[in-house]
Amino acid sequence: MSAISFQLLKVSRDSMARRGRLRLPHAVVETPIFMPVGTQATVKTLSPEELQDIGAQIVLSNTYHLHLRPGEDIVKEAGGLHHFMNWPRGILTDSGGFQVFSLSTLRKISEEGVEFRSHISGEKLFLGPEDSIRVQNALGADIIMAFDECPPYPADDDYVLNSLKRTTRWAKRSLAAHKRQDEQALFGIVQGGMNKEMRKLAAEELVELDFPGYAVGGLSVGEPKPLMYDILAYTTPLLPADKPRYLMGVGSPDDLFEGVLRGVDMFDCVLPTRIARNGTVFTKHGKLVVRNAKYARDFRPLDESCDCYVCKNYSRAYIRHLIKAEETFGIRLTSYHNVYFLVRLMQKIRVAIEEDTLLALRHTFYHDYGYQLNDQEV
Amino acid sequence: MSAISFQLLKVSRDSMARRGRLRLPHAVVETPIFMPVGTQATVKTLSPEELQDIGAQIVLSNTYHLHLRPGEDIVKEAGGLHHFMNWPRGILTDSGGFQVFSLSTLRKISEEGVEFRSHISGEKLFLGPEDSIRVQNALGADIIMAFDECPPYPADDDYVLNSLKRTTRWAKRSLAAHKRQDEQALFGIVQGGMNKEMRKLAAEELVELDFPGYAVGGLSVGEPKPLMYDILAYTTPLLPADKPRYLMGVGSPDDLFEGVLRGVDMFDCVLPTRIARNGTVFTKHGKLVVRNAKYARDFRPLDESCDCYVCKNYSRAYIRHLIKAEETFGIRLTSYHNVYFLVRLMQKIRVAIEEDTLLALRHTFYHDYGYQLNDQEV
Repeated sequence: MSAISFQLLKVSRDSMARRGRLRLPHAVVETPIFMPVGTQATVKTLSPEELQDIGAQIVLSNTYHLHLRPGEDIVKEAGGLHHFMNWPRGILTDSGGFQVFSLSTLRKISEEGVEFRSHISGEKLFLGPEDSIRVQNALGADIIMAFDECPPYPADDDYVLNSLKRTTRWAKRSLAAHKRQDEQALFGIVQGGMNKEMRKLAAEELVELDFPGYAVGGLSVGEPKPLMYDILAYTTPLLPADKPRYLMGVGSPDDLFEGVLRGVDMFDCVLPTRIARNGTVFTKHGKLVVRNAKYARDFRPLDESCDCYVCKNYSRAYIRHLIKAEETFGIRLTSYHNVYFLVRLMQKIRVAIEEDTLLALRHTFYHDYGYQLNDQEV
Repeated sequence: MSAISFQLLKVSRDSMARRGRLRLPHAVVETPIFMPVGTQATVKTLSPEELQDIGAQIVLSNTYHLHLRPGEDIVKEAGGLHHFMNWPRGILTDSGGFQVFSLSTLRKISEEGVEFRSHISGEKLFLGPEDSIRVQNALGADIIMAFDECPPYPADDDYVLNSLKRTTRWAKRSLAAHKRQDEQALFGIVQGGMNKEMRKLAAEELVELDFPGYAVGGLSVGEPKPLMYDILAYTTPLLPADKPRYLMGVGSPDDLFEGVLRGVDMFDCVLPTRIARNGTVFTKHGKLVVRNAKYARDFRPLDESCDCYVCKNYSRAYIRHLIKAEETFGIRLTSYHNVYFLVRLMQKIRVAIEEDTLLALRHTFYHDYGYQLNDQEV
């Protein structure tokens, strides 16, 4: 029996957009959904209560980081990640593969897995599919990810083909290693770079393995956006319609719209909390760099159209002061607002799918935000 | 008409301890009270809602810091400090004198005031009694402080005498400059170093000026604790019994007990939030350095006897992980707990005064905490 179930509530008439409901051991998640990222068992600066106030239903945490610090044994002893971080709702952990490639030094990929040096201690370590799943079983997230390799962009076809074939073999080993099937759902990850044939091959091989959900990996890695949208639109129809689809590492407002329009149900991204730490916030009219001098005497909220806790209680002038004075309460406020902005945007997108008004919502949102409307087919 | 009123509810039978009620424009404050410090218009890492949950009734903010950044004009334009920082309860601002002496460089004291360089911009600035009060009037705190000089320790008698006489002249100028008598209460500050005659002189001169409240300044500046307690016990009886007494910059648990026992009604200190940032917390059994390796697998709360939000929801192991991983949520949790600890301690002290059990409470608290009982007369 799978740990999760997914119900398709509605499929859009004008696009591939879907409205669904994902039942996890710790949460019922309305899709499409944006998952805030809590890399080190905390969504930076925010409390679990704040995330619940914001309306977050599921967060992502990073296996690589938690494996290095504090170590999965400690999290397991604490009763699992939900208990450790006091977060009662859904959690997804990634496989650690992406971080091994992007953060560690001196990595060496073999059939067995990846040898690398810790970016913290410099220690030589090894992570393969069995290790990744063992760590993720110990962490205890609702959804866990198969160990994969995300090829760089650009990469030549030979590299991508070898990599995706190995990713399929690693997916099989991940499945075999998974010890908590009834409590944690293991998703497969479709790679294949920017090559459609290879995306097709990767999807076919993984669908064969019958995962309860599928991620599209290897996008938003530096390629032009039209290429990303094209590969995505090609890939999602290759995945079973009755399983959730997760586009990894994507979360700018336009990418959320374009992803939903191409049949994606789940997203995650560090963007809202990362730009918050630089004093940048999302608003209806585009990004606003609140640390700029021009906001020193601006007593309006960050976003005049926003009804979040921050916008109801604090001015741009106050938040700018806090950030200039290096007071962490400032980035708490910008982080709260930014996560709220994306969670709220996804709520609006869900309603628009239900009401068949998603293209109109996109049009209005892009117009206000200052995005150029992307005119590709959706 | 004074902006505040002070009611003495009870005077202890065994000591100088007093139980009072201080009515401010924005709060009714039960005394003795501990005031958390929000140096730059924020109590570091904490939200106003958290401070209210903790039970804080009044916070201190620093005139020197707010004058330099963001500047009192911006705070005034925001509708005053209460609005600017979204804090509806009591606020006290200090005079800026202490920070000018302790933080700025190249300071030069004259009869007029103090010339100094900003510790932020290096800019040459000047602060005298009229400036300090003008800034504090713009900030709009419930209680403001006369501009004073806090002499260093040790200092020779001539220096201290000249300094306290100038502080009296500055107190008169502060009174004369104060434009919002009905909305803000101006307190005088008794200096005089470690010399009882000079404390007496300072107190007499200031009492003559009939301030609505008095601070004892210039203690806890490096002198041995028995000397501090001796000077304090000598000074408080020189102040009017029907006015609130404020011991500046003091807030370790033993100093709170010893201060209350010597007739102090108000305290402030950065200690709880400062040690929190180093991963140190107050517990019933003394300080605990939660960042230490020995707490890596300790799933107990910070303080097993504490009922605060942090101790109900988070383990030492999790908080240690956050602090080691440089996640600001960690110091949010230690800061919350530490401020709660002192606010709660003052609540217990207030009840003990009402019930005439303060000496017994001190005995038990010191025994558990590991303090040596101070056997001086109280």
